[in-house]
Amino acid sequence: MVHCLPAATVSRLPLYHQILKSLLDRGRDFVSSDTLAKLMSIDPSLVRKDLASLGSGTQRLGYHVATTMASIETILGMRNTKEAFLVGVGSLGRALLAYRGFCDYGLKIVAAFDTDNSKVGQTIGDAKVMAAEKLPGLARRLGIRMGIITVPAGVAQHVAEVMVESGITAIWNFAPVMLEVPEFVLIRNENLAAGLARLSYDYEQRLNNTKEGEGEQP
Amino acid sequence: MVHCLPAATVSRLPLYHQILKSLLDRGRDFVSSDTLAKLMSIDPSLVRKDLASLGSGTQRLGYHVATTMASIETILGMRNTKEAFLVGVGSLGRALLAYRGFCDYGLKIVAAFDTDNSKVGQTIGDAKVMAAEKLPGLARRLGIRMGIITVPAGVAQHVAEVMVESGITAIWNFAPVMLEVPEFVLIRNENLAAGLARLSYDYEQRLNNTKEGEGEQP
Repeated sequence: MVHCLPAATVSRLPLYHQILKSLLDRGRDFVSSDTLAKLMSIDPSLVRKDLASLGSGTQRLGYHVATTMASIETILGMRNTKEAFLVGVGSLGRALLAYRGFCDYGLKIVAAFDTDNSKVGQTIGDAKVMAAEKLPGLARRLGIRMGIITVPAGVAQHVAEVMVESGITAIWNFAPVMLEVPEFVLIRNENLAAGLARLSYDYEQRLNNTKEGEGEQP
Repeated sequence: MVHCLPAATVSRLPLYHQILKSLLDRGRDFVSSDTLAKLMSIDPSLVRKDLASLGSGTQRLGYHVATTMASIETILGMRNTKEAFLVGVGSLGRALLAYRGFCDYGLKIVAAFDTDNSKVGQTIGDAKVMAAEKLPGLARRLGIRMGIITVPAGVAQHVAEVMVESGITAIWNFAPVMLEVPEFVLIRNENLAAGLARLSYDYEQRLNNTKEGEGEQP
């Protein structure tokens, strides 16, 4: 059993998996670290380090595609179904409910919750929208361990606390706030605005540099 | 003018901005690095380093809330409107079109494009969905410089190439592939699956450790 892979390696595993899957679909049995590196736009030495940390050995022909895929699936628990509740049926909540890519990771959003009664009763993706106050009872009854937060920033902490009190121990947070949760709760913050901020910053820098460059012309 | 802030600092700026805004709304004029650190769940020394790199000086009472906010807005170009085209009106594309948080960063998605004719003519958020083949002409006519890609992985490279040929020089890519673009094109990859992979991995690790712990009992 592999323990404690570097976080950066874990982040790259979905992309490895996707590339390996497309190679397998095209009938490829083996792939070299050079080919993988090119497809991922990273250095071949990093590919070798990543795959060595999974316990994938190289053979003369390269990495065995199907075996390497299977290792990734085991490590990420892609074959183990993880049932989750989602709270906050706004535009982002709806998108996550409708997104089909998560089932590849064994994630199944079984129900969604919102305080807006006009949304209650709707079905989005495979999940039914329920009244927020039903979350604690249902989470305990169904033994739900994973929660997804897509509410506005101002109420996210409250939602996290309700989730934790209801037995949820892994939270995927899309609200742009840092949540305070007990030590035993796993938390993963996703921040779309941070990505946009990075792109905006680089964009502004370039505009400014261009203007400065123009200023230097006679 | 501040040049070349560390990427990690830039990623934290949206959160600083949000916290400062809520402090300003509550009538606070100054804030200490300790208070900011607590609200961000990071170390006070990191807050001081981040804000020093923006050129924000501390006074006896702490950082001036409004001035620090204004610095962040300038650095991220939050007051400069950036018009963007989005390609791929699936569930994620729809969510981004409907999401109201982007306008805080000056991002305005002015039109969306899809190859599915049944979607053409719909209005989502403030954007109209148009036929994909209209992108090059419109991008050139309107001088669009930013593109958002929310198409499936298999067609993302093609979309990126069309964008670049149409004069787009900054791409925010949500498709789970690495895109090959010319050196002068800014690119920012957003990968929802990578975040989920990290959470799943930690979750599986904990499950395995729990099981191993149980095995050790007599």
